[in-house]
Amino acid sequence: MSSDSHTNVDSQHNQQWLLISRPTAEPTLDNFRFVEVELTPLVEGQVRIRNQYLSLDPYMRGRMSDAKSYAPPQPLNEVMIGGTVGEVVESKHPKFQPGDCVVATGGWQLFTTLDATQPGALRKIPASSIPRSAFLGVCGMPGITAWYGLNKICEPKPGETVVVSSASGAVGSVVGQLAKLQGCRAVGIAGGPDKCRYVIDELGFDDCIDYKAHHDLKALSKALAIACPQGIDCDFENVGGHILDAVIARMNSHGRIALCGTIAGYNGEPIPLQFPQLILLSRLKIQGFIVSEHLEYWPEAISTLTGLVSKGQLKYRETVSQGLKTAPAAFFNLLKGQNFGKQLVKLI
Amino acid sequence: MSSDSHTNVDSQHNQQWLLISRPTAEPTLDNFRFVEVELTPLVEGQVRIRNQYLSLDPYMRGRMSDAKSYAPPQPLNEVMIGGTVGEVVESKHPKFQPGDCVVATGGWQLFTTLDATQPGALRKIPASSIPRSAFLGVCGMPGITAWYGLNKICEPKPGETVVVSSASGAVGSVVGQLAKLQGCRAVGIAGGPDKCRYVIDELGFDDCIDYKAHHDLKALSKALAIACPQGIDCDFENVGGHILDAVIARMNSHGRIALCGTIAGYNGEPIPLQFPQLILLSRLKIQGFIVSEHLEYWPEAISTLTGLVSKGQLKYRETVSQGLKTAPAAFFNLLKGQNFGKQLVKLI
Repeated sequence: MSSDSHTNVDSQHNQQWLLISRPTAEPTLDNFRFVEVELTPLVEGQVRIRNQYLSLDPYMRGRMSDAKSYAPPQPLNEVMIGGTVGEVVESKHPKFQPGDCVVATGGWQLFTTLDATQPGALRKIPASSIPRSAFLGVCGMPGITAWYGLNKICEPKPGETVVVSSASGAVGSVVGQLAKLQGCRAVGIAGGPDKCRYVIDELGFDDCIDYKAHHDLKALSKALAIACPQGIDCDFENVGGHILDAVIARMNSHGRIALCGTIAGYNGEPIPLQFPQLILLSRLKIQGFIVSEHLEYWPEAISTLTGLVSKGQLKYRETVSQGLKTAPAAFFNLLKGQNFGKQLVKLI
Repeated sequence: MSSDSHTNVDSQHNQQWLLISRPTAEPTLDNFRFVEVELTPLVEGQVRIRNQYLSLDPYMRGRMSDAKSYAPPQPLNEVMIGGTVGEVVESKHPKFQPGDCVVATGGWQLFTTLDATQPGALRKIPASSIPRSAFLGVCGMPGITAWYGLNKICEPKPGETVVVSSASGAVGSVVGQLAKLQGCRAVGIAGGPDKCRYVIDELGFDDCIDYKAHHDLKALSKALAIACPQGIDCDFENVGGHILDAVIARMNSHGRIALCGTIAGYNGEPIPLQFPQLILLSRLKIQGFIVSEHLEYWPEAISTLTGLVSKGQLKYRETVSQGLKTAPAAFFNLLKGQNFGKQLVKLI
């Protein structure tokens, strides 16, 4: 497949979303600017990708801030960071040819120009029956995050109870399904009856608690006691705040908590852990992790996840927003939990 | 050695401290009752020990409460729990002879009568040049706690920085000295200039922060920044509260926290962890542990610790209160940090 079969790149402009200021609370459209820029000729080693899908993920909220974090902040006046899947349209690197389907950190833009000599800059995805968008979700970073946190930190044994917050989301949905496949009781926490029904009926979790119907620690704790009659052995935590407080209070001795996200505090509000003494009393392990620091496990995880998806043993749902211009609004919805499953922006 | 060389047991009364009510805040003498009871004849399998030293430890405060914990609460109207070292004075068990020196959970009393057929009920200590009292401290449960938490949870590498709170205490003093022996920078946190001087000058820590001179999070955080110019890799936490908050804020990526105690909250006051999101941002591991759940490591730990003590490489200090009657007052002092090193009660 030559680049001629695609939109003529050289004559095109790129479209991009830049971050132009840092939000102090909820981000707004004022923090972004939409720009059109010329595409410049490639230099040796570069590859140009026409992005098909942009992934929107909660971690992006952290990057918008310049507070201390595991990664440097998103620089101002540059293209917002983001995972993409797309097709190579032009290449000055021998390993990549026009038509190759690749995953990259392509950013919020139509075209991405990358130095392909940098290790890990882009990754070819196999020709398979799995839709390309899955490589941004269930078989991509979110799915690998679920696989790693569950298997390398929680290490659940058959018969144990695994709780996961944001259970209908891109990460949580995989956590619970993997836990079920490993013989565990899987209990989700999600927002609203529709998501809870989906988590139980379609994803096959044993139970799912609607946190919107259980506003405080006491109510949530009671709901957890009913959903987890044998207590909680593993928690895959995506939210934090009083959801984590309630889960910790129900954990069995020697429980393990994989701390993957703290959505509850993403807009800067304090989210203290109310009862840290329970970590001692119940001899818990809490461990934070970032999946991009464990690249050595990615091939194993991707192979497992794509295998399960193609056998129909791992289900997923996507919320697809149409067109690059919709990216900020779709991102705001994600932060409010208004998406359902993996949030994507379709760029073509 | 026959029992004749000792005080005539049969004709003696035992003296005991019972817990008679549960404190709601700081414990007081009203929670205890001092009693004298008859010693009854031994039955088959029993051993009677004349206790020489009683160990007082912070965990006892937890047992006085009936809140959920890792161990059942101390029953009311029974002898207060406590570790003891003493000498067998009478035995109806073939493995123990009068004159044997043993460590046991003998309780706050002069004589302990035990069923020696129960595994782990009492443990002979070797005839060595080490004072017997050391087997309640540096070579006993506190020392083993230090050894386990440091080596099995923190796992410090040479050159890393290890922080320990309650640094002059029975556990903390061993943590820092072991860390130094393993090539780490050891920084203590202790209360008052005398304890800090002892920690640096006698125990050989690199630095020690006086938490009484740094009242709030900001001051303590600043002191930690100065004492730990390379950040903190490992924290052996005995206190919790704002001390833990300050340490967590200074931890390096992939830091490890062994949570051994939360003295800050022992009297029921809330001690929320202010910034749990740092566990994720810095990819920390926090793990609570109880050394009595890891008996498989005790022989290795005791052998290491006694070896180091006899070579003069592991120093310790004791605060010895004279006579069983002084036990409650000595315990209250311990909870307020008014002891210096291992708190003991000498019973003979």
